[in-house]
Amino acid sequence: MRSKEEYHESLKAMKPNVYMGGEVLGRENIPGLDILDLTFDITKVEEYKHLTTTTSHLTGETINRFCNINQSPEDLMAKQEMTRVTARFAGGCIARCMGIDSLNALSVITHMCDQAHGTEYHDRFLEFMKTFQKNDTVGCCAQSDVKGHRLRRPSEQTDPDLYLRVVEKKKDGIVVRGAKAHNSFAPLAEEIIAIPTRFLRENEGDWAVAVAVRGDSPGVKLVCRGSSYRERVPELAGLHSGKGEVESLTIFDDVFVPWERVFLCGEAEFGGQLALLFSLYHRHSYTGCKPAVSDVIMGTAALVAEYSGIEKEGHIGSKLAELISAAELVYGCGIAAAVRSLKTPSGTQVPDVVFCNVARKHAGVNIYHEYDLLCEIAGGLPATLPYDKEFISPEVGDLVKKYLKRVDEVSAEDMYKLYAWVSDITCSGMAGVMQYAGVHGGGSPIMEDIAILRTYDMAEKKQLAKWLSGIEQVPFDIG
Amino acid sequence: MRSKEEYHESLKAMKPNVYMGGEVLGRENIPGLDILDLTFDITKVEEYKHLTTTTSHLTGETINRFCNINQSPEDLMAKQEMTRVTARFAGGCIARCMGIDSLNALSVITHMCDQAHGTEYHDRFLEFMKTFQKNDTVGCCAQSDVKGHRLRRPSEQTDPDLYLRVVEKKKDGIVVRGAKAHNSFAPLAEEIIAIPTRFLRENEGDWAVAVAVRGDSPGVKLVCRGSSYRERVPELAGLHSGKGEVESLTIFDDVFVPWERVFLCGEAEFGGQLALLFSLYHRHSYTGCKPAVSDVIMGTAALVAEYSGIEKEGHIGSKLAELISAAELVYGCGIAAAVRSLKTPSGTQVPDVVFCNVARKHAGVNIYHEYDLLCEIAGGLPATLPYDKEFISPEVGDLVKKYLKRVDEVSAEDMYKLYAWVSDITCSGMAGVMQYAGVHGGGSPIMEDIAILRTYDMAEKKQLAKWLSGIEQVPFDIG
Amino acid sequence: MRSKEEYHESLKAMKPNVYMGGEVLGRENIPGLDILDLTFDITKVEEYKHLTTTTSHLTGETINRFCNINQSPEDLMAKQEMTRVTARFAGGCIARCMGIDSLNALSVITHMCDQAHGTEYHDRFLEFMKTFQKNDTVGCCAQSDVKGHRLRRPSEQTDPDLYLRVVEKKKDGIVVRGAKAHNSFAPLAEEIIAIPTRFLRENEGDWAVAVAVRGDSPGVKLVCRGSSYRERVPELAGLHSGKGEVESLTIFDDVFVPWERVFLCGEAEFGGQLALLFSLYHRHSYTGCKPAVSDVIMGTAALVAEYSGIEKEGHIGSKLAELISAAELVYGCGIAAAVRSLKTPSGTQVPDVVFCNVARKHAGVNIYHEYDLLCEIAGGLPATLPYDKEFISPEVGDLVKKYLKRVDEVSAEDMYKLYAWVSDITCSGMAGVMQYAGVHGGGSPIMEDIAILRTYDMAEKKQLAKWLSGIEQVPFDIG
Amino acid sequence: MRSKEEYHESLKAMKPNVYMGGEVLGRENIPGLDILDLTFDITKVEEYKHLTTTTSHLTGETINRFCNINQSPEDLMAKQEMTRVTARFAGGCIARCMGIDSLNALSVITHMCDQAHGTEYHDRFLEFMKTFQKNDTVGCCAQSDVKGHRLRRPSEQTDPDLYLRVVEKKKDGIVVRGAKAHNSFAPLAEEIIAIPTRFLRENEGDWAVAVAVRGDSPGVKLVCRGSSYRERVPELAGLHSGKGEVESLTIFDDVFVPWERVFLCGEAEFGGQLALLFSLYHRHSYTGCKPAVSDVIMGTAALVAEYSGIEKEGHIGSKLAELISAAELVYGCGIAAAVRSLKTPSGTQVPDVVFCNVARKHAGVNIYHEYDLLCEIAGGLPATLPYDKEFISPEVGDLVKKYLKRVDEVSAEDMYKLYAWVSDITCSGMAGVMQYAGVHGGGSPIMEDIAILRTYDMAEKKQLAKWLSGIEQVPFDIG
Repeated sequence: MRSKEEYHESLKAMKPNVYMGGEVLGRENIPGLDILDLTFDITKVEEYKHLTTTTSHLTGETINRFCNINQSPEDLMAKQEMTRVTARFAGGCIARCMGIDSLNALSVITHMCDQAHGTEYHDRFLEFMKTFQKNDTVGCCAQSDVKGHRLRRPSEQTDPDLYLRVVEKKKDGIVVRGAKAHNSFAPLAEEIIAIPTRFLRENEGDWAVAVAVRGDSPGVKLVCRGSSYRERVPELAGLHSGKGEVESLTIFDDVFVPWERVFLCGEAEFGGQLALLFSLYHRHSYTGCKPAVSDVIMGTAALVAEYSGIEKEGHIGSKLAELISAAELVYGCGIAAAVRSLKTPSGTQVPDVVFCNVARKHAGVNIYHEYDLLCEIAGGLPATLPYDKEFISPEVGDLVKKYLKRVDEVSAEDMYKLYAWVSDITCSGMAGVMQYAGVHGGGSPIMEDIAILRTYDMAEKKQLAKWLSGIEQVPFDIG
Repeated sequence: MRSKEEYHESLKAMKPNVYMGGEVLGRENIPGLDILDLTFDITKVEEYKHLTTTTSHLTGETINRFCNINQSPEDLMAKQEMTRVTARFAGGCIARCMGIDSLNALSVITHMCDQAHGTEYHDRFLEFMKTFQKNDTVGCCAQSDVKGHRLRRPSEQTDPDLYLRVVEKKKDGIVVRGAKAHNSFAPLAEEIIAIPTRFLRENEGDWAVAVAVRGDSPGVKLVCRGSSYRERVPELAGLHSGKGEVESLTIFDDVFVPWERVFLCGEAEFGGQLALLFSLYHRHSYTGCKPAVSDVIMGTAALVAEYSGIEKEGHIGSKLAELISAAELVYGCGIAAAVRSLKTPSGTQVPDVVFCNVARKHAGVNIYHEYDLLCEIAGGLPATLPYDKEFISPEVGDLVKKYLKRVDEVSAEDMYKLYAWVSDITCSGMAGVMQYAGVHGGGSPIMEDIAILRTYDMAEKKQLAKWLSGIEQVPFDIG
Repeated sequence: MRSKEEYHESLKAMKPNVYMGGEVLGRENIPGLDILDLTFDITKVEEYKHLTTTTSHLTGETINRFCNINQSPEDLMAKQEMTRVTARFAGGCIARCMGIDSLNALSVITHMCDQAHGTEYHDRFLEFMKTFQKNDTVGCCAQSDVKGHRLRRPSEQTDPDLYLRVVEKKKDGIVVRGAKAHNSFAPLAEEIIAIPTRFLRENEGDWAVAVAVRGDSPGVKLVCRGSSYRERVPELAGLHSGKGEVESLTIFDDVFVPWERVFLCGEAEFGGQLALLFSLYHRHSYTGCKPAVSDVIMGTAALVAEYSGIEKEGHIGSKLAELISAAELVYGCGIAAAVRSLKTPSGTQVPDVVFCNVARKHAGVNIYHEYDLLCEIAGGLPATLPYDKEFISPEVGDLVKKYLKRVDEVSAEDMYKLYAWVSDITCSGMAGVMQYAGVHGGGSPIMEDIAILRTYDMAEKKQLAKWLSGIEQVPFDIG
Repeated sequence: MRSKEEYHESLKAMKPNVYMGGEVLGRENIPGLDILDLTFDITKVEEYKHLTTTTSHLTGETINRFCNINQSPEDLMAKQEMTRVTARFAGGCIARCMGIDSLNALSVITHMCDQAHGTEYHDRFLEFMKTFQKNDTVGCCAQSDVKGHRLRRPSEQTDPDLYLRVVEKKKDGIVVRGAKAHNSFAPLAEEIIAIPTRFLRENEGDWAVAVAVRGDSPGVKLVCRGSSYRERVPELAGLHSGKGEVESLTIFDDVFVPWERVFLCGEAEFGGQLALLFSLYHRHSYTGCKPAVSDVIMGTAALVAEYSGIEKEGHIGSKLAELISAAELVYGCGIAAAVRSLKTPSGTQVPDVVFCNVARKHAGVNIYHEYDLLCEIAGGLPATLPYDKEFISPEVGDLVKKYLKRVDEVSAEDMYKLYAWVSDITCSGMAGVMQYAGVHGGGSPIMEDIAILRTYDMAEKKQLAKWLSGIEQVPFDIG
């Protein structure tokens, strides 16, 4: 396993292809680096090692769990718990699950495709994976195509490049063209795993393509946008002040990919399955990170209530109980998804579809409400809090301190820090990004509905209705 | 294990003390008998035997799982699944969990009390339990006291009997007085397990009493109310037409209880713990039965949609997905509660408090909405459906059939049966009772809030907020 | 204006064509008669006369407002207020608005049709209306066709009779065939006003038919279903104990209608407009009756809270405030609909479409939640309350009274009466019918969405978005 | 009436006392100035003049309606409509209602106080008002005290200054000390109207103080925080790009106020009434501005749907209908509040308490949900949209344009502008501020509950429950 310093070295060695705000930025200056650092640092913290490290089933070596292919229900539970623990410290997205979630999906689908078509994707994949684990690589997953007209299929778009596609097959590899949107933390990833975003028809094989490309491969262009918490004077700063995250529109401007990095190429029927399976793993990851977001919100809300002297009020308790429910319903179903997981022929363990999807959906439909609850408990101050410069100003600082005071036991400084943090997570560009991530990340509620309805055994339930209503007789002797 | 016929014999032998509608009824005429019959019949159905029967840890004999004291996470999961399966056939409450839930709680608390006070409750309890299992006994739990003024404690009421209490201690036993409300299916139980309903103060030892009494003991008076689905002509009847359930106000009018049936008597601090632990087991049971209620609602709704030709409409799918989510969030957290369960010194396995409570709460806050969804999908007909007598009438029957017709593939008879069933579960006295049970059964949402807030580690979450906001430093080296 | 006794005489004179529970019933025995009686009695109560009576714009005579064609915003406001006042005493549906709402719609559409087609419907209608007012007639509106396959149009059904249609035109009148569902209180109406239920295409003129038929005309068959509150011993009875309401599947088995009672016949484009306009008037009526339902629910909930000693608890207040909001948002928009109403060329005043529909929709999406709130405040007792026979029983009555006691100030009798009433409105067949009426009566939420989206000026709002986003320039000099 | 240029001159003449980000800023550089400019410009736009100007009842001169004391229901309706119209162009808060709302409240309370105490506040107020109107003054209202420990009264705080209070009475005026929080747009106001924030006890006369102070009076210190939409290159800019708003913690550091500007001083019982009445006027203003916010959200959402090709999808329609309902329920109740308004002895017209409060509450409890709906319709792009600099970049601009394209009819530029606007209103610091304003501005939902419960005639509703349940007889002859 690497240290964050080794990771930084690797980033520095990458060619500049990150476009942001009119500049081409070096990767060491990208917002979100501290989040990825955390995934290295935490493997050194004793009390979390049982979660953050594991043993590779490929090599038997100790690896960062963010590089692990899940082999058992216990693996899935450990991944979920690690995700919650690390995302708490991140105060939100922990960035590194996307890559490994896509690799878990590929471990299954490459095997299935080989069985069906006699291809050799799975062995290629395993070789790739061994290196990935050995190097403690940071990967990201580029899935969401830009999609053009939303009601048209890839093959129906005016411009065929609006879904990533193979434009040329060569002896030693393929050339791909297109763009992937919403690519969180992509400039901080060494490997970009690109996979399809939807089900494909037989004639849409060109769009059935999965590849791994180095983040700085020729033709890859990362057009980025950063979101940050406000900068703050050091004496009043929080853990993440001035830091943030980055999103990428990742453009594949005719990128060459050698065959050993191609994991699907033309097998249309596996395009959709791969898309769905990545989503499934990623939704399972959400059963870890989304409760962590709720942890942050509820802990902050409870502390605000304590600092304002209203912690024991009935309506505060009922709001906190709502936040707890939001977190634990999601987390509990993540556990259930591991309990009901299945081992595939590839050896990889796949979590239960229904539990993952009802959990992710529940998180998605509640996220704005959670912010609403925090806002209600906090009152208006996070939107109107004076700046740190005034808090420490010789001219008005004492007055600001005097008037921010609430309960006697809590200093004006602590009050300020807490409210500045609430302001960061509810009244900054980051706040909006986290709300969007809560709704759409890993699949919007409407996508989960589709996944649920596709999978759920509703015929069994209709059968029950026929028995109860007398339309059909119960086929065994009861009642 | 008994057959339902043996059970009926036992009921017939009981002395008449059931008051209902101005009559004293024999137990064989009480609505709800078919539900309890089901719990005997289903032990004979091959495909469910692995769920409905198990091996007694006390005697090693095969027993009905409704008589089992849970010893492992697997036990808890099997109980949950059995509850869902049987409650589906019941179309709702399966009646027999209350008794065994209270006995599971007693198995833990009697042991704890003995450790603390040197009492002998646990051995008594185990003796009682062996007989209970051997006889395949039907028990119920009488918990909710009538409570009088809601803001006053037991010792503060104008009438001290508004919570069940010990009025006399004798050499061979005790005399109890009071009344327990909302005692579902009590007249069909052979044993009534009475336990406290709330936390008690030191001076409230008289109210800290747990006993098992035969349902027809002298002084026991069951003042009952029945709710039924409408009676229907045989050719149009559903599985439960004309049947229903029964509720009891169970009065203990100075009932003598011999010591071997007394499991708590005066140890005030265990009164509340027993109350809470029964609730916990019962809420865990709800993670089985409540999804079954959702199964019934969603299966019915999906069949209505199919029979009306609208099954593929987008808004139908999204409503069904809501119903699925309601069911599976609750069920998933029941599984998680088993995974995170703890073994107590008594050997009994106790499910996780937070997962059980968020699940039960979620069920409770959603139940009316589930009926709303069914109502929206069904349209107005369940409220205005002609009677069965007109459907088969020589005079107007053909016209009724003509005008109830929807899609070609479904006969007017099947349409009628289905809508009559919807009418039964949404527009009958039973419907309201099921709505109330969904909200209040096993504890209202506000009670779950209390249980959650009492248990949840919010200090850990506030600590997190202190780290993130910079009020305190993270005590290890990350980020 | 008539007395209820005169109205009863009229009902008794009608020929028997009400089929219910295997019998042909006389109209004096139909549940719901007391509700219609109320609409006569209340015109005699001094404090409500300004609401319940008005002056006919046709004859200048004093009439029951339930027979009025609205001529002004003030008329619409008075109708709304009368509806709330009378529906309160009815404890729900006041039954008589449907008829007059359809007549208001006809007053407009007959005029429009005459203008467009040179027909003579409006004069006919005015003649009919004069008699209707003079006789203080009870009318009902038969709108909802039985509809068959829900995704097929009238002309696409396997059986063309699934929407009411003209099957023969004669010299002196027409013959209609079909059936109308959900026809509340129809057997208690002297006149049935039948109108179309949806938009019709040019080739669907046969289904564009509006007529007034006497309730006992040859060929009319009312297949009915009653719902009632429980009967109760006189000393414990409430205002409506043992009473209820009636729904009819109204079959037109080749009914002859003379021309002077035909108000639309073949003019397809006015079929949909008539359907929509009736719905509009009826939704405006809901802005009166639905707040009355909320009044009943909130008053009952507040009294339960008072009788239990918990009236001052914070969560009770917030639940009551939710109920108040539900009522007054709907009522307020009814007022706004009158303020923004329009006078049509016919002279009739038409309420605003958007305000009526957002109000009706809000009522519909909240109704189950309102019952939920009452259920939460009431606790489980309404579902488990002993029968009145036990309350007065010499054997157990004293015990029941002892144990139903709550706060000292309220007698067990009053407690019982109140809880029996809660049980009536939440755990009876009536409760379900009221929930369905709340959702579907006058149009389901999905129908209101359609009406809103059809009418609302969204283009103006998109224009605003273009200005704000810089896509287009604001065309005047601001900012 | 002034032009915005004259207003700017006035601002420039004010002494510098605005502290923000470590600087003392001149008022011409404060974010939000464009919003106030709008209130001057729009009085010149012909089509809105009937709304934005009116005739002073004091002087008979034409005045800006933002300076008007409402004299009739029509005045209230016009104010509501003006507020919606202007707030639309502002894309949110129109800033100038706070001042005039407090002056309306003062017009009533000064009169009442004079009647009760023989004081001379009302005449003083009228003099002040004439000048205010003549000068077309911009006022703001400083109400929310900083409050300290939330469960302690003003007189119970450790520091008595945590609520604004009189610290000295002099011959020619008074000295006040304290601070008011959440003072939107205060640095852009020429007059600050300070009034109490809560009910006061008899011994709390020192805190019962209402004054008008010039924004740059000695001792006044405005500690400010700005929130802005992102700056954008001119060719892609929207109407408000780079602009925003400002909030102030307004400190009264021993400010002297001459008697002619003192409108309450010591009359404790009127402190709470004044607080409540300002809130009432301000909540009525919300019935105008909050629907405007919904207009912006829904127009934007509808345009996004159109530009993505999904406008006709069912779930889009139902989401738009939800947004329409949110807007129009609030707006409709604002109209009803004017219809049911009352004329006070002062001549000022006061809107209905219940309708204003249910409307404001409804807006508050829905605001986060409205953003959620926009987020769901928009998809993830607003959170990940590349910067404008890349859109116009010679290096990657063409690729960005290629991949942002959706439906053929809409250019990439328009797509970009629209999404950049969505990003502005949902993923910027402004977005959070607007969410907080939506919840807390003018009073949080919990404050509206209190106002509603205090006012609503619940006794009448309980009476109804007594009649219906048979506890009491209906006192007149019905049914």
